Amino acid sequence: MGLKPNSALKASKTLFVLPSLFTFLLVGSQGENTAMDNVATERRAEESHRQDSANLLIFIMLLTLTILTIWLFKHRRFRFLHETGLAMIYGLLVGVILRFGVHVPRNMNNVTMNCSVNASPATLLVNVSGRFYEYTLKGEVSTVKGHDVQDDEMLRKVTFDPEVFFNILLPPIIFHAGYSLKRRHFFRNLGSILAYAFMGTVISSFVIGLVMYGCVTLMKAVGQLGGDFFFTDCLFFGAIVSATDPVTVLAIFNELKVDVDLYALMFGESVLNDAVAIVLSSSIGAYQPAGDNSHTFDATAMIKSFGVFLGVFSGSLALGVATGVMTALISFCFTKLRDFPLLETALFFLMSWSTFLLAEACEMTGVVAVLFCGMTQAHYTFNNLSPDSQDRTKQLFELLNFLAENFIFSYMGLTLFSFQSHVFNPLFIIGAFIAVFLGRAANIYPLSFLLNLGRKNKIGSNFQHVMMFAGLRGAMTFALSIRDTATYARQMMFSTTLLIVFFTVWVCGGGTTPMLSFMNCGCTAMVLQKSHAHFYVFEQVTVSDGTQHRNTKHESAWPFRIWYNFDNTYLKPLLTHSGPPLTATLPACCGPLARCLTSTQAYENEGHQHNDDSDELVLNDGNATMYGDVTVSTDASGTLTTNHKHLSASTMGITSEEALDQELAFGEHELVIRGTRLVLPMDDPPEPTVTLPPPPTSPPPFSDPFSDPFSDPFSDPRRNRL
Amino acid sequence: MGLKPNSALKASKTLFVLPSLFTFLLVGSQGENTAMDNVATERRAEESHRQDSANLLIFIMLLTLTILTIWLFKHRRFRFLHETGLAMIYGLLVGVILRFGVHVPRNMNNVTMNCSVNASPATLLVNVSGRFYEYTLKGEVSTVKGHDVQDDEMLRKVTFDPEVFFNILLPPIIFHAGYSLKRRHFFRNLGSILAYAFMGTVISSFVIGLVMYGCVTLMKAVGQLGGDFFFTDCLFFGAIVSATDPVTVLAIFNELKVDVDLYALMFGESVLNDAVAIVLSSSIGAYQPAGDNSHTFDATAMIKSFGVFLGVFSGSLALGVATGVMTALISFCFTKLRDFPLLETALFFLMSWSTFLLAEACEMTGVVAVLFCGMTQAHYTFNNLSPDSQDRTKQLFELLNFLAENFIFSYMGLTLFSFQSHVFNPLFIIGAFIAVFLGRAANIYPLSFLLNLGRKNKIGSNFQHVMMFAGLRGAMTFALSIRDTATYARQMMFSTTLLIVFFTVWVCGGGTTPMLSFMNCGCTAMVLQKSHAHFYVFEQVTVSDGTQHRNTKHESAWPFRIWYNFDNTYLKPLLTHSGPPLTATLPACCGPLARCLTSTQAYENEGHQHNDDSDELVLNDGNATMYGDVTVSTDASGTLTTNHKHLSASTMGITSEEALDQELAFGEHELVIRGTRLVLPMDDPPEPTVTLPPPPTSPPPFSDPFSDPFSDPFSDPRRNRL
Repeated sequence: MGLKPNSALKASKTLFVLPSLFTFLLVGSQGENTAMDNVATERRAEESHRQDSANLLIFIMLLTLTILTIWLFKHRRFRFLHETGLAMIYGLLVGVILRFGVHVPRNMNNVTMNCSVNASPATLLVNVSGRFYEYTLKGEVSTVKGHDVQDDEMLRKVTFDPEVFFNILLPPIIFHAGYSLKRRHFFRNLGSILAYAFMGTVISSFVIGLVMYGCVTLMKAVGQLGGDFFFTDCLFFGAIVSATDPVTVLAIFNELKVDVDLYALMFGESVLNDAVAIVLSSSIGAYQPAGDNSHTFDATAMIKSFGVFLGVFSGSLALGVATGVMTALISFCFTKLRDFPLLETALFFLMSWSTFLLAEACEMTGVVAVLFCGMTQAHYTFNNLSPDSQDRTKQLFELLNFLAENFIFSYMGLTLFSFQSHVFNPLFIIGAFIAVFLGRAANIYPLSFLLNLGRKNKIGSNFQHVMMFAGLRGAMTFALSIRDTATYARQMMFSTTLLIVFFTVWVCGGGTTPMLSFMNCGCTAMVLQKSHAHFYVFEQVTVSDGTQHRNTKHESAWPFRIWYNFDNTYLKPLLTHSGPPLTATLPACCGPLARCLTSTQAYENEGHQHNDDSDELVLNDGNATMYGDVTVSTDASGTLTTNHKHLSASTMGITSEEALDQELAFGEHELVIRGTRLVLPMDDPPEPTVTLPPPPTSPPPFSDPFSDPFSDPFSDPRRNRL
Repeated sequence: MGLKPNSALKASKTLFVLPSLFTFLLVGSQGENTAMDNVATERRAEESHRQDSANLLIFIMLLTLTILTIWLFKHRRFRFLHETGLAMIYGLLVGVILRFGVHVPRNMNNVTMNCSVNASPATLLVNVSGRFYEYTLKGEVSTVKGHDVQDDEMLRKVTFDPEVFFNILLPPIIFHAGYSLKRRHFFRNLGSILAYAFMGTVISSFVIGLVMYGCVTLMKAVGQLGGDFFFTDCLFFGAIVSATDPVTVLAIFNELKVDVDLYALMFGESVLNDAVAIVLSSSIGAYQPAGDNSHTFDATAMIKSFGVFLGVFSGSLALGVATGVMTALISFCFTKLRDFPLLETALFFLMSWSTFLLAEACEMTGVVAVLFCGMTQAHYTFNNLSPDSQDRTKQLFELLNFLAENFIFSYMGLTLFSFQSHVFNPLFIIGAFIAVFLGRAANIYPLSFLLNLGRKNKIGSNFQHVMMFAGLRGAMTFALSIRDTATYARQMMFSTTLLIVFFTVWVCGGGTTPMLSFMNCGCTAMVLQKSHAHFYVFEQVTVSDGTQHRNTKHESAWPFRIWYNFDNTYLKPLLTHSGPPLTATLPACCGPLARCLTSTQAYENEGHQHNDDSDELVLNDGNATMYGDVTVSTDASGTLTTNHKHLSASTMGITSEEALDQELAFGEHELVIRGTRLVLPMDDPPEPTVTLPPPPTSPPPFSDPFSDPFSDPFSDPRRNRL
């Protein structure tokens, strides 16, 4: 763990492409010496390719091992260590072995050439007796004492190009997060989520930046600082550690079936603040003018940074939404594409990938574009896909997400030992942990207080504590911090960030389950029942402390309601087959236009709409998961009895929201369900041992074609007509 | 299309990894000049990344366009141009635009450095005022007139590292081919397939090599040859153009539902000869001793080459089978993994990928290992997977195969114009076409004659003509020829190979459909019926000219029968849950061992075995396709009537093979079915307008739990006990 400068960025991007290109290039040169030289080069290239394959194999084996252990944990219902934490442990073990077990010193002498060059350009042309060879810069090699080049070949080999994370591993993770957002609850809490994600992240960044600046100043006074650490570096550090991780939140909360609003707040915030953090950190880079090493406060640069932030964020958002809408339009226009799920899935995949590339080509942020593309795809395109393709796309992105996520986390563990330029500074690390804690607190508590002023459905203090506690740092923080480890400041940041990620994933992640039950944020009686092959029905009853009566209509902010109406009346019919036909939603004067834009399928669907976009259909955990709505009523004595009348009511085509409103009018002591949420109108939470009614595997008693027990009150277009 | 030497191998592997690594490496250097220089480098790196994204976007758009057009073609049932041919056309168009529309001259001056170096090693360390930078060789740059470096940046950018094909694109294609082999018919024709694939490919290689050597000698005499072209080059050319393409064969034949034996012969041959060709071509490389430019015949080198061929082939085969078996064992032991299809699928994917890496790390051929791994996975592992994972893995590899295949073919089209060192020599091209024709003929006709001596079920002359005609060259030929384009000989080979691929895909591929109906190789009355959501039942009756009576028992070669019995008695029960329990197959003395090795699930399955490995379940085209066995009988007058008695017989648990034997005993004029094949015992083929019975969507009349109308006579373990 020496302090020698950057040797870690020696990207083995070769691991991915495994080029033994030079093998062949040199074949066929003239002359005896050249031929022998070529053969030697060829052998080296083959050896390098072999080595690359072996190294990648290490990672694959690591992933395989992780999967088997994850299965074991899931099988034994062992919940205190999350799978990502597990992947990190395996990575750590392999890192230790590579670091202390294997040492392959590098023989540099036979390739070192002393060129009288003044700069190190990205591309170098070397003139070898009249023939030009092109070389690309791979990185700087650490030097020890003068001209001796020393390097651990093995550790260098298992180090990936940091850009691999941004261009290969993060996009599927972020896309999956967007694609699986619980949209109903997401939109219901949109205002709060945006507040936490935007204002909260900015607040957190500045708080952390300021605390760290204080810490760094102290370190400088004590003489503990081994290099430059500017204020912009502090802010940069604040930005990268402010991104909470959707991966772990999604996994833990989804498995535990917590309160859906808490889930929506946590997940929505962590998805969006990833996007905010990535743009924020690049804006801080733009704050520092080119070649200017002054690092002083500059109002112009500040405004410029702000402009960059806004421009890049909104540009990426627009791009993501645009390609999402385009995919929706393609799948809307080429209706018969539904007959070929393979083509449909391939198209969906390619369009989503092209979003990323398009954004990068336009100098936007690909990851942010992909996030909003995923959300748009889920909202519109998903409805146009054939059921087969819906499954396929979900499963494909689920798999990609799973592999990428576990790869990143096991790589994280590995890096703790394989990275050769760690700077562990105890003072800085302690300061960083305090700063992260303060930053998170400054994000959650004041904002929650402000939001509660406007919210009908208050964010309880237990929810706030959970949000404070479960703000894990993960893949995005890691990727942002490993992206640049050239300077002393960045190396210290990277090492500290790694520790923060480890701590939050292991301690906070592992402690989330007990924390949730302690805080009483929703406990779940879950009955897993195998109804027939391929299909599992989850009966879920979420019981929370019933201090909040809610009325969905009133709790939604007015901008959302306007948006919802606009979306439902115009966008959905225009882009999907699932909405009401435009002829029904547009005013009569637009009749001809509406008829022309409405597909025949929309008319067909009018009779029996699927509401394919209800979140239950998008969000599942590997199985076709469904959350059955079960109505449970309680009489005055507090004992629970199931109420089949309400179930019938909800299956009769009356949306559960309306049902709720009716129920609330009947009596205060009646316990009803809305969505997957059960609101108990009493202060004392009931025993969680709820006796469940038999699961509705048989068709509902009312076989009204309009009935859909899983209907989404927010996406149900029939509401407008009732 | 100039004749200037190699400039095409400038691999933009960067397109995959998009490294802007150097951006960050250089940040933080000391001094004013360095800072300015770094900023400039950073800008260049960003620009390069932007450009890379844009280029990759071109390919994605190309694929998107191809998919939409494929859909259009499928929708309009336009069959004369296959999708791969289409992808090539789009590639061609883009190539023309890039070649003649856009020209980005490269500014080389600011990066060229004249180093006094004598060799061009793979890695170069450059000493820039005390700091060491590592550079990797990218390729040689073509020079025009002395020291001026001229290059078309745009064309160079869209050129991929040829190793991308071998390490990223070919493996999923070949794995998919192995995973979807129609195994029943494959094993029935195993001997013939092996003969065609091994002996045939070697014969073809040598015939083509000899013809080309004659052609080259002629060219040298006429003065048409612009460089060296040795005999080993001729043999190498023979090896690479002898690989017929499974992609197009699979697609065309599967869509047309040709005779299953013809299908098995064609597909099996084309899959295996890819493996043979890749190992053969690398063995020819080994023929030439290191540094030896003599290119004369050498018996020792010949034997060495043969040894390399055998060693690499058998080693790769063993590796592939070993990891396949390991996956089967894992999924066999961790039975409860079935509850988590995501984990199961991820494990399956990773194990299959690790096969490739393991083979490459052991200096074997990854592609060959992946092929046999795919076959093993389909034979054993597939049976242990949950139904959900079976679907997922099939769909995943189908998608990967589809994307990789279309990418390769559109890249092929692009290369015709973007490759900057084409050598089109008319004489060589004509010679090559003749050689390819002769080589294929020397493979098919003599071998068929020899095989027919031993086969009960003769390979008809019409089949031979189809096999001759439909031997398309595709992805493997292209990948092998683009792998090395350094010398004049290799460049000429590459250009000629490209033309051969174009010709065979467009002309032969397009002509296969009329050819098949002209040759009367199986016409199909297909009824597509949508029984319920997601599920299509294909009723298929294949009518061929009925010159051949067959008896499955006798037509199988004895080595296969021994293998089949061994596999069925020991391997299947040991590795899968689908066979009979070991306790039933092992002799009584091994009772305790058998009980210990048999899972509880195998006992459960004993009652109602699935025969999951019947080929219908593996091979489908995006939908859950099933081929119903329908028995049609014909009376003496030749009119067709359906015979439901036989259908019942086959559903009563008696395998169709036994049914066949019984039927054959009853009368010669009765027409029966075996598998999906209908054997007509008369010389005059009946009218193809077969009246089909109503499809058996309702359960069969005999609801015996043992009955399985789709049972595979070869994989039915009950045969042993009847």
